[in-house]
Amino acid sequence: MNDAVSSSTTSFAPEIEFWFDFGSNYSYLSVMRIEALAAAHGVRIRWRPFLLGPVFRDLGFTNSPFVLQKEKGAYVWKDMERQCRKYGIPFMRPGTFPRAALLAMRVALLGADRQWMAAYCRKIMQLNFADDRDIGSAEVVSEALEELGLPAQQIIADSQGDANKLRLREQTETAAARGIFGAPTFFVGEEMFWGNDRLDDALEYCDSTGTAQ
Amino acid sequence: MNDAVSSSTTSFAPEIEFWFDFGSNYSYLSVMRIEALAAAHGVRIRWRPFLLGPVFRDLGFTNSPFVLQKEKGAYVWKDMERQCRKYGIPFMRPGTFPRAALLAMRVALLGADRQWMAAYCRKIMQLNFADDRDIGSAEVVSEALEELGLPAQQIIADSQGDANKLRLREQTETAAARGIFGAPTFFVGEEMFWGNDRLDDALEYCDSTGTAQ
Repeated sequence: MNDAVSSSTTSFAPEIEFWFDFGSNYSYLSVMRIEALAAAHGVRIRWRPFLLGPVFRDLGFTNSPFVLQKEKGAYVWKDMERQCRKYGIPFMRPGTFPRAALLAMRVALLGADRQWMAAYCRKIMQLNFADDRDIGSAEVVSEALEELGLPAQQIIADSQGDANKLRLREQTETAAARGIFGAPTFFVGEEMFWGNDRLDDALEYCDSTGTAQ
Repeated sequence: MNDAVSSSTTSFAPEIEFWFDFGSNYSYLSVMRIEALAAAHGVRIRWRPFLLGPVFRDLGFTNSPFVLQKEKGAYVWKDMERQCRKYGIPFMRPGTFPRAALLAMRVALLGADRQWMAAYCRKIMQLNFADDRDIGSAEVVSEALEELGLPAQQIIADSQGDANKLRLREQTETAAARGIFGAPTFFVGEEMFWGNDRLDDALEYCDSTGTAQ
């Protein structure tokens, strides 16, 4: 749980923590948008994959609120179509929602500090929300890594190690402990911003904190 | 229930339907913003007060989700502070939330097509979300109307007539029938937009529909 205070360590660039799950449709929008926006603000992205399912269950939800509340669910897919059109992001409603993608998430945790992280996340998200592929399968995760020119089998094997599995559970517990109740969620220091609709505000808040670059 | 199709009647200006409840904090943001924004787009506002409480109850909620989900509730008030600062809107967290304001809502329904509607709505909303006054009381509603130079007692009496009471119940049923699950909600024709965060998108959608002015 020491993770909870890691954002307060000294850094030379302002930092935004990006908490997300590959099954989350609004996380898709942020995965596709955050790199260019963060670069424009001179902000470093700290990628924080976590499992939204256990967080929802802790809050008493047996599934995504978009599934449990059919009126909201019906709206959300219309909203996604419009939002994707607005941002120029491809979109096709997934045949399964929400898609559990445990292996893909473990790979994301392993890759969080690696050069390929952003491209990997975009690839997995597009497979889910633009190509309607089953990102829960090892084949699709492997395909995604290979298309990025990465050693897929090695990365997948590493991601399935006990230490990495445990870290993903711990990161999910940290999410709950910090008050996260949905995804995407952003933190700038201890200031929390929920939803793709607050990504720009979170980055503007980075500017206002005036961390030396 | 004929109300449900009223937006398709011929009109010379594009129109945005604004569905709101005085107890809803995100409706506060839209009440304070919509007039200037709609004017800038040349869009007419169709004010649609409805009772969010019965809609929530129909959906299975015993209270506002911001009360039922304490993590989300804690976040929402931080978000409101930041949003109000961003838009230059005064804010003080109400001592009671959500505030039922049946009389104020009945007056809003009565005033929906009158010149004083926008100013009245802003006044009631500010009393609730900036001054922490009990907008559920007849005294506060009366004070609001008087400050606008209106015949408070006459308006209040009219609003309590059976026909107006029934209309508010019907308008609330129409809201549910149209798939509304929260407030504020906007309609442009049959296109639904949920939340203050989508007000700008809804107005841009008005532009794109190309209704002759």
